[in-house]
Amino acid sequence: MDERLQKQIDFILEIDKEKNIFRQTHLSGHGRNENDAEHAWHMAIAAFLLQEYANEKVDIGRVMLMCLIHDVVEIDAGDTYAYDAEGLKTQKAREEAAKERIYSLLPEDQKAQLVELFDEFEANETADAKFAHAMDNFQPLLLNNSNGGGDWLEHDVSAKQVYGRQSRTAEGSEKIFEVTDAIIRENIAKGRIRQE
Amino acid sequence: MDERLQKQIDFILEIDKEKNIFRQTHLSGHGRNENDAEHAWHMAIAAFLLQEYANEKVDIGRVMLMCLIHDVVEIDAGDTYAYDAEGLKTQKAREEAAKERIYSLLPEDQKAQLVELFDEFEANETADAKFAHAMDNFQPLLLNNSNGGGDWLEHDVSAKQVYGRQSRTAEGSEKIFEVTDAIIRENIAKGRIRQE
Repeated sequence: MDERLQKQIDFILEIDKEKNIFRQTHLSGHGRNENDAEHAWHMAIAAFLLQEYANEKVDIGRVMLMCLIHDVVEIDAGDTYAYDAEGLKTQKAREEAAKERIYSLLPEDQKAQLVELFDEFEANETADAKFAHAMDNFQPLLLNNSNGGGDWLEHDVSAKQVYGRQSRTAEGSEKIFEVTDAIIRENIAKGRIRQE
Repeated sequence: MDERLQKQIDFILEIDKEKNIFRQTHLSGHGRNENDAEHAWHMAIAAFLLQEYANEKVDIGRVMLMCLIHDVVEIDAGDTYAYDAEGLKTQKAREEAAKERIYSLLPEDQKAQLVELFDEFEANETADAKFAHAMDNFQPLLLNNSNGGGDWLEHDVSAKQVYGRQSRTAEGSEKIFEVTDAIIRENIAKGRIRQE
């Protein structure tokens, strides 16, 4: 097999490991913990279906690809829970090292292309990145809400923490943030999110 | 919330169930069985990375979306193993009923759009559909090969059966079929695929 195709296949096999990186979110129906590959799949479809609510016009193919690859680095760096203050301090360094190792399996041009897309997601400045982030926040919120807020209760999460994360959804989609806000208010009222 | 957005969210929550539909394929590293959502995620990324090998030019955004949604019907219809002759007889009818129920959760325009894309995948006549099918075949082949062909051994699969399925990969990508053929030959030689 030629070297280029071999590299592409090596990368494809490597990212299979993302299916073993589990998140704090649980599947609907009070299911097991969700893994990163499932989360990425779900986010990409949600992005396609909800693209009409993006604040600015997005390139949906790019957004979907961004969603699909945004957690590849967690194969090495692990999942950092959104409300894990200690883990968040070292997250960037761990993910940078992972990015270099894993994307280096690809041919140079494809490594550059995917690293650029990942960096764009992380920088969260473009319309595509902001909408992808809105989906990254909204998808677990929907699952958690469908399960009676069990993930918030388990981690004793406060309203301030939830808004700290979820308010950035408004940068990608005001409309999706309206729904987010309504869901958060309902969960505070029901005692599933701690009020300070 | 307005009715359109409620329908979109209902669909997004419904397809969460795809994460509970398990396939015969095992994850690399002799892992557990893979589920449909993980398979779809993996296929979509593989399609992006290998698009240069498609026989005809493809619209990669459409191919990726086709990959992401192609197994949604299995939420109701279940996974039908590629070499399950009895299951294959009723597969079409089961999947048609599932398609109608699940996609009807969406607003009419999005239902029409996704049903059209799914039907195009099933008909396997366009360049996009043929390349998506090549990925649908190649992704589990890679995983199974990485695990010493365990899935073929477990089901006592014959060379004729494997070629019956995998030869269609050539319709989407001659290049990917070359790799497929080399992998099959090696696995026959090693006794992992039964020779008639």
